[in-house]
Amino acid sequence: MCELLGMSANVPTDICFSFSELMRRGGGTGPHRDGWGIAFYENAGCRSFHDPNPSYESPMADFVRDYPIKSDVVIGHIRHANVGRVSLENTQPYIRELWGRYWCFAHNGQMEEIFDTLPMHGRFCPVGSTDSEYAFCWLLNCMQASFNSLPDEKDIETLGQFLLQRALQLHHMGVYNMLLSNSQYLFAFCSTKLWWITRKAPFGEAQLRDADMTIDFKNETTPDDIVTVIATEPLTCNETWHSIAPGQLCVFRDGKLLMTLGEALPAAG
Amino acid sequence: MCELLGMSANVPTDICFSFSELMRRGGGTGPHRDGWGIAFYENAGCRSFHDPNPSYESPMADFVRDYPIKSDVVIGHIRHANVGRVSLENTQPYIRELWGRYWCFAHNGQMEEIFDTLPMHGRFCPVGSTDSEYAFCWLLNCMQASFNSLPDEKDIETLGQFLLQRALQLHHMGVYNMLLSNSQYLFAFCSTKLWWITRKAPFGEAQLRDADMTIDFKNETTPDDIVTVIATEPLTCNETWHSIAPGQLCVFRDGKLLMTLGEALPAAG
Repeated sequence: MCELLGMSANVPTDICFSFSELMRRGGGTGPHRDGWGIAFYENAGCRSFHDPNPSYESPMADFVRDYPIKSDVVIGHIRHANVGRVSLENTQPYIRELWGRYWCFAHNGQMEEIFDTLPMHGRFCPVGSTDSEYAFCWLLNCMQASFNSLPDEKDIETLGQFLLQRALQLHHMGVYNMLLSNSQYLFAFCSTKLWWITRKAPFGEAQLRDADMTIDFKNETTPDDIVTVIATEPLTCNETWHSIAPGQLCVFRDGKLLMTLGEALPAAG
Repeated sequence: MCELLGMSANVPTDICFSFSELMRRGGGTGPHRDGWGIAFYENAGCRSFHDPNPSYESPMADFVRDYPIKSDVVIGHIRHANVGRVSLENTQPYIRELWGRYWCFAHNGQMEEIFDTLPMHGRFCPVGSTDSEYAFCWLLNCMQASFNSLPDEKDIETLGQFLLQRALQLHHMGVYNMLLSNSQYLFAFCSTKLWWITRKAPFGEAQLRDADMTIDFKNETTPDDIVTVIATEPLTCNETWHSIAPGQLCVFRDGKLLMTLGEALPAAG
């Protein structure tokens, strides 16, 4: 199993603190040795770092941990390879352009039968050989076939419901914990486990779970900041994280939970 | 005007030496203060670094200069903004997937009338507002409309001729120096200036033009290595660089010039 990390914020915010926890799990305190990646949105732009080496011994991960990139939305991933060899092209998150926006996708889980079950019709093709990238391309092809353009803000629930139905299809093939963004919205679907926390004023201290590291967000923020972090496991030990129920899709924007769609199901896998 | 940097090699090779010259020009010895980017292919995979800050004072550029990423093909760019504000989404190179491969594109020049002259039909849409990204999306839409899939190796001249005709269209709208790759081939079109050099055994010393820095490639290579570097200006002062004539497109693969297409024209601009 891989691990996911997401962030949505109402002001450009760095994710160094949370990322430092994730990268230690990449071959250090966790088994996810098979590469890591992270994408940062700044308005419509998106920059990403991908490395097929374990994050806990990656100089590039050290750089990302220490260099505060201020972003509106972040999607990160550390990999424990199941389907597809360890290589750069199989390293998540994946990024594609649709409707003049960069869509970024990361997946944790396994859906081995996906290649035989879901036909790939449309413009988006996988470059690598993972079930995750296949699912992403299939999803984008479905989106393009079903919508002419990005739904308006007032219709975002329509897109959310569409993504929920596709996510349930994939959930029934195996395990499909997923983060997806188009630079504005952050969609999070839970198949087995996915946790989130929203931090806002009054800010307090947070203590990382696996490392002796504490941050006082009061010193890092202004009173108007709202920041949500999403992760496979809670990253801190002294805060209350919320779990997304298996079968549910949460939509975040500007640091806030906009809506939760779907009914809680028995956990997949 | 921006500056371009390209590399094609028959073994994974780092470009630290050439990149160190380019980044000094990014606001240091040159006027290209408006961002920089570089993409590295490793087999089918592609990782990239994008920064809207000047490269000569960018911690991320320092990292890329000092961290040897071994690649088959590299495309880099430093920006002097003309069309489109300074922002991450307007920072080259641009990357899109077509036919299950990542295509990477960088452009130097200006084609202001492109927005009114060339209609955008097809799946690829710009995310930012530069003429360069518009040209790239238009080119990919043309490719997708004209070919069902990537032409076979034996038909690569067909694709080269197609790219040459589209390049000439853009050349006649302004200035269109261009690098394009799909991970295997590196296409280089010259509108005003573009230089290349192929290094192979016996390797010798090279001296950077703008800095007191020398490298002895004998110590960095094996006798079978073949590496071509392409740049807007020759990067070294003690080697013989070849110019591509305005109006011509060169196709490189595995470090070697495969073919030169087109007739030399009067320089654009």
